[in-house]
Amino acid sequence: MAQPTGLDGYGPEVVEEIARVRQVVADLHAELPRWELVVWTAGNVSQRLTTAGLFVIKPSGVTYDQLSAESMVVCDLDGTLVDGDRSPSSDTAAHAYVYRNMPAVGGVVHTHSTYATAWAARGEPVPCVLTMMADEFGGDVPIGPFALIGDDSIGRGIVETLRGSRSPAVLMRNHGPFTIGKDAKAAVKAAVMVEEVARTVHISRQLGEPLPIAQADIDHLYDRYQNVYGR
Amino acid sequence: MAQPTGLDGYGPEVVEEIARVRQVVADLHAELPRWELVVWTAGNVSQRLTTAGLFVIKPSGVTYDQLSAESMVVCDLDGTLVDGDRSPSSDTAAHAYVYRNMPAVGGVVHTHSTYATAWAARGEPVPCVLTMMADEFGGDVPIGPFALIGDDSIGRGIVETLRGSRSPAVLMRNHGPFTIGKDAKAAVKAAVMVEEVARTVHISRQLGEPLPIAQADIDHLYDRYQNVYGR
Amino acid sequence: MAQPTGLDGYGPEVVEEIARVRQVVADLHAELPRWELVVWTAGNVSQRLTTAGLFVIKPSGVTYDQLSAESMVVCDLDGTLVDGDRSPSSDTAAHAYVYRNMPAVGGVVHTHSTYATAWAARGEPVPCVLTMMADEFGGDVPIGPFALIGDDSIGRGIVETLRGSRSPAVLMRNHGPFTIGKDAKAAVKAAVMVEEVARTVHISRQLGEPLPIAQADIDHLYDRYQNVYGR
Amino acid sequence: MAQPTGLDGYGPEVVEEIARVRQVVADLHAELPRWELVVWTAGNVSQRLTTAGLFVIKPSGVTYDQLSAESMVVCDLDGTLVDGDRSPSSDTAAHAYVYRNMPAVGGVVHTHSTYATAWAARGEPVPCVLTMMADEFGGDVPIGPFALIGDDSIGRGIVETLRGSRSPAVLMRNHGPFTIGKDAKAAVKAAVMVEEVARTVHISRQLGEPLPIAQADIDHLYDRYQNVYGR
Repeated sequence: MAQPTGLDGYGPEVVEEIARVRQVVADLHAELPRWELVVWTAGNVSQRLTTAGLFVIKPSGVTYDQLSAESMVVCDLDGTLVDGDRSPSSDTAAHAYVYRNMPAVGGVVHTHSTYATAWAARGEPVPCVLTMMADEFGGDVPIGPFALIGDDSIGRGIVETLRGSRSPAVLMRNHGPFTIGKDAKAAVKAAVMVEEVARTVHISRQLGEPLPIAQADIDHLYDRYQNVYGR
Repeated sequence: MAQPTGLDGYGPEVVEEIARVRQVVADLHAELPRWELVVWTAGNVSQRLTTAGLFVIKPSGVTYDQLSAESMVVCDLDGTLVDGDRSPSSDTAAHAYVYRNMPAVGGVVHTHSTYATAWAARGEPVPCVLTMMADEFGGDVPIGPFALIGDDSIGRGIVETLRGSRSPAVLMRNHGPFTIGKDAKAAVKAAVMVEEVARTVHISRQLGEPLPIAQADIDHLYDRYQNVYGR
Repeated sequence: MAQPTGLDGYGPEVVEEIARVRQVVADLHAELPRWELVVWTAGNVSQRLTTAGLFVIKPSGVTYDQLSAESMVVCDLDGTLVDGDRSPSSDTAAHAYVYRNMPAVGGVVHTHSTYATAWAARGEPVPCVLTMMADEFGGDVPIGPFALIGDDSIGRGIVETLRGSRSPAVLMRNHGPFTIGKDAKAAVKAAVMVEEVARTVHISRQLGEPLPIAQADIDHLYDRYQNVYGR
Repeated sequence: MAQPTGLDGYGPEVVEEIARVRQVVADLHAELPRWELVVWTAGNVSQRLTTAGLFVIKPSGVTYDQLSAESMVVCDLDGTLVDGDRSPSSDTAAHAYVYRNMPAVGGVVHTHSTYATAWAARGEPVPCVLTMMADEFGGDVPIGPFALIGDDSIGRGIVETLRGSRSPAVLMRNHGPFTIGKDAKAAVKAAVMVEEVARTVHISRQLGEPLPIAQADIDHLYDRYQNVYGR
């Protein structure tokens, strides 16, 4: 693995925030197996710092039992390792691209959760036929392009799909969901909710066509929910 | 959030019942994730007091790990907050409408459980093709109207559907199940059972048409079960 | 509830066996929720005594958290309560009928497990298309008749279907599975396995027709497995 | 059961490795119920020794609660019991055949995991329509022949299917998956991943045809993943 560039030159408020966010990100990873969104070592959560152009993310290939605050790694917005004993997740470049290009995003999550990935494999958006989808997603859950790992393709696909969408989740074709939020917790909630709605709509459609919700009703529900919960 | 109007003017027997029912309602919320009826903070349970025109319900946006008797809130039958540190669940108006209009109901539960919500999204009642459905529901599980949150529409839809039905569960269109009972425990049992029968009948219908049960047999099973269990 | 007739007239070896079997039956009930075969208070396990014409079964309407050796009840082979503080399970008459009419059976289990009940609702046997089905069931899992609770109809349906079948499981139409074994543990294993094969064959058939296994191969697998495991 | 031939004639380094690998194999068995790949006593994991022509495997008919390092048994590459208090798994001959004929394989796992077995019952390979399948399997998951237990048929079917395939998993027709790896942990990971991809592709195909991934993209993903993770 590449040597970390180190935290020299960052102030104490950055060091302090890193310690805090390492704990937050480690704890949030435990939500992924809890809600059955991942198997083995798959899936990753990151959160951007507010005090520096850095983010904290899961290292590569570590099982969920072994995740601790200390094992989390710190990268800059190019995805270069800054602090940590392990290599960052192989999806780090995608997280970094999102942070560079979506300033309001403070957290990113990636999983291969079953039902969301099943829609992604067909390249088919999840239609907005549930009031909880109107609340949380404000419409359909969109599909992103097929993109290979190794350069900015995945990150660019995420950003281009989510810009101008209300949805905090994109289903990358043949791959799986990426979700965003104001912080890692909000992105984890979106990852839980996108699997929930993908599963429920899938099951509904197995025996017929779900009834659509009128666009005006979707708009009403979305506006109310976002205001009530102050987002 | 709105300031609670307070418990001044309520006697000691009311204060005592509130303490007891807060614990009951907090404990019953733990049944919702246990039976996989909810994710994240979704779902809510309430119970009406026997000593005053009040009910106890879950606060809004609290995760299932954080639920304690103390965090439960008390509302009057208009849904106005009477006692508690947090805002009541955003579904409080629907619970309150049910209590105002169905005097025999002592408990209400709302979830977005997967299979029940899948039937709700198609607007299709669950047909009574299982002896345990005949026992518990006395017939099909009915569909309620599409209704927006924010006024009495949801509550009215629940009450109009369940009045004159044997079923303690209604599937609100594009939304999810509401269940009722003589107390919160009975409503939670109905929430568990409606998901169970929604799932089993769904799976049965995936490979063909389930065999109907004759109406006379449904009536016989329902009458026997309700008498044996003394409801 | 009816008063128990009591253990007067039974010798110390019967009293001792009752104590032991109460623990066995209580412990085996914990396997039902563990393998997701039951919700709420549904499902029941019984075991016949070897020292007297009695069997131990779960009481009615008790949740799985509350099950203890002491709460298990003892009935005679007519299903009459002999010892215990609670009413026996409402399925006791069916268990008793099986013990009266199948002398080799020492344990009976009833659940509403999802996939087995889904086949039962269509009245369709589970075809033997898995080597583990050939091992355990020696062929298809058969369907029993529609029968109402309240007399011997369910017990008679079980016995008439399983007599002359290799299968230790019958799917009672519109109702759910009953399983038998040389003792309660064997019947619980059959309840776990019938749900497993009902689920796997269901899922296989969702996307096409499973390949049949030749009858000679089914016979060969069944004979080998029953001999190896000494049943 | 047959008497073990014993460890006389094996050096201390072999005895030491056996003690270590017994623990590894016992611990890895706990992963099978954890990821819901097995019920009751089904499923088995083995690992080949590096210091002698022996392997460690689960004994027959033991429940997952009872598995300890001490209960694991040692067999030679003909599948003959060398050390241990119990009979080896009834699938030992298949494991032994793989070790004799695939020198690079250090671990073998067999389960009846639901979705993988469902594809196996139709005799249909799982098509490579997910990037995680390209990573882990390098293409479709292949089907092996129908084979009866009792001689080398199952082992030969595994080896003939996996030789010349990138996939570490084969779905034996009407039976279930066998997976291989450089050690038991890698084979367990393959068992977890084959069920995951079998489930996700199954669910995707329930509502339409998943989009294919171009062969060149599959090759690119597979080469990258195998190099990054140094296999």
